[in-house]
Amino acid sequence: MTRKELFSQIQRKQSYLCVGLDTDIQKIPGHLLHEDDPVFIFNKAIIDATIDYAVAYKPNLAFYESLGPKGLESLQKTIEYLPDDVFTIADAKRGDIGNTSGLYARAFFEYYQFDSVTVAPYMGSDSVMPFLNYPGKWVILLALTSNKGADDFQKCELKDTSSSLYQQVLETSKQWADRDHMMYVVGATQASLLEEIRKIAPDHFLLVPGVGAQGGSLAEVSRFGMNSECGLLVNSSRGIIYASSGPDYTKAAANSAKKTQEEMAVYLNRYL
Amino acid sequence: MTRKELFSQIQRKQSYLCVGLDTDIQKIPGHLLHEDDPVFIFNKAIIDATIDYAVAYKPNLAFYESLGPKGLESLQKTIEYLPDDVFTIADAKRGDIGNTSGLYARAFFEYYQFDSVTVAPYMGSDSVMPFLNYPGKWVILLALTSNKGADDFQKCELKDTSSSLYQQVLETSKQWADRDHMMYVVGATQASLLEEIRKIAPDHFLLVPGVGAQGGSLAEVSRFGMNSECGLLVNSSRGIIYASSGPDYTKAAANSAKKTQEEMAVYLNRYL
Repeated sequence: MTRKELFSQIQRKQSYLCVGLDTDIQKIPGHLLHEDDPVFIFNKAIIDATIDYAVAYKPNLAFYESLGPKGLESLQKTIEYLPDDVFTIADAKRGDIGNTSGLYARAFFEYYQFDSVTVAPYMGSDSVMPFLNYPGKWVILLALTSNKGADDFQKCELKDTSSSLYQQVLETSKQWADRDHMMYVVGATQASLLEEIRKIAPDHFLLVPGVGAQGGSLAEVSRFGMNSECGLLVNSSRGIIYASSGPDYTKAAANSAKKTQEEMAVYLNRYL
Repeated sequence: MTRKELFSQIQRKQSYLCVGLDTDIQKIPGHLLHEDDPVFIFNKAIIDATIDYAVAYKPNLAFYESLGPKGLESLQKTIEYLPDDVFTIADAKRGDIGNTSGLYARAFFEYYQFDSVTVAPYMGSDSVMPFLNYPGKWVILLALTSNKGADDFQKCELKDTSSSLYQQVLETSKQWADRDHMMYVVGATQASLLEEIRKIAPDHFLLVPGVGAQGGSLAEVSRFGMNSECGLLVNSSRGIIYASSGPDYTKAAANSAKKTQEEMAVYLNRYL
């Protein structure tokens, strides 16, 4: 999916919501466990319930891998079920030496046919480049994450540039790919730093996790993070998919997604 | 496997060789492609050929994931085939927010029952901690990798400590776990920095990739990296598993592993 197509979907749905399919077999409604593939059945129901309100879906690979090969089959069915006009994100946070990153790219772009994959920057340019060889596919590079551990290294100040590591990651990686091929992960819990980040990367899309269960504010993220083409995909996982643990889980997910979309529509009108 | 058990295996086999099972379906001998599970058949043959010379095996997850769920089945069979007295490493380079890292830990330690998993440090403490909740299991944290991109961020000098990022990763993470639960990845191409690294982490095991195809020297790694309990696992992938692409591939792998083991025996006698 191109940047223009993504922005067009955002305008059409008046939403920049990404639904995180962090589907944990231990948390889905009990009555689904009798199904042949409860994870896929749950995902299918969540997708059906939220498709009018979301422009992107982001399965986190950990949840599928924890179930072994069968979990990856559930993932594959989920991706195949998602319509072409939503943006798909493999939240995998991969990154390895060049030839190995090439294999991860093969996995996520060729085998599962995701539109994008999240990549960790620690191993540098040649760990990211192989993901950029696929026309129409995207790298979403970790910059500043939503968790407490982001303070450990990402915020370390560098000697030569007096910038933090995450700022250096943005500066350096901008040279690897433009806004049509790269996005950045910036945690919603870091909203106060979004102004700084927008100075370095004004035009790139940002994937923003951490709204909801992790405590980030959609209002602040939108105020400080939005650019002229929206430039935001704000993820919510637990707040939508586990809005209810009972038989009404699809209705609760739809309501939660709708409420978020309606708030997003306000910000799109205000800042765009 | 405990540190003592690992050292005992190193002494018994006079080897600190780790065989990297980077099994690429496009590179294994053509006659295996008629088999039902060529990746597993190849791995099984490589394990049989090298088991006398290696103390550890390291499948790189990318190679298995690139084949979809079926690739993970090959991985599972491979892990089940490996005897209990070898140290197994899931080379996965994972790392995510706490609850998600917990799921990766569940995948690699509970489902596949690896002894250890490689973890990327970028997301900090809470992305690593969930892997440390498993008695007898290990985190192998990326410190200084073997690829060119290691220069991009790992070698950035930090303002407050005047150390490089990778040195800070070592210093900080030493507080998360001791030498009985954590190892570090240090690329063989960085052998000149092993003396510095040993000043920060004298007692930890180091997993050293990059000997062979990537150009690292076993002699230098052993000279600068070995400690009183060896403290090294030196990985070779392509140089062993693709020593021949013909029907003699097991013999060639055995010869290559044996040659490496014999060189290692010399260094063990010299430095231990």
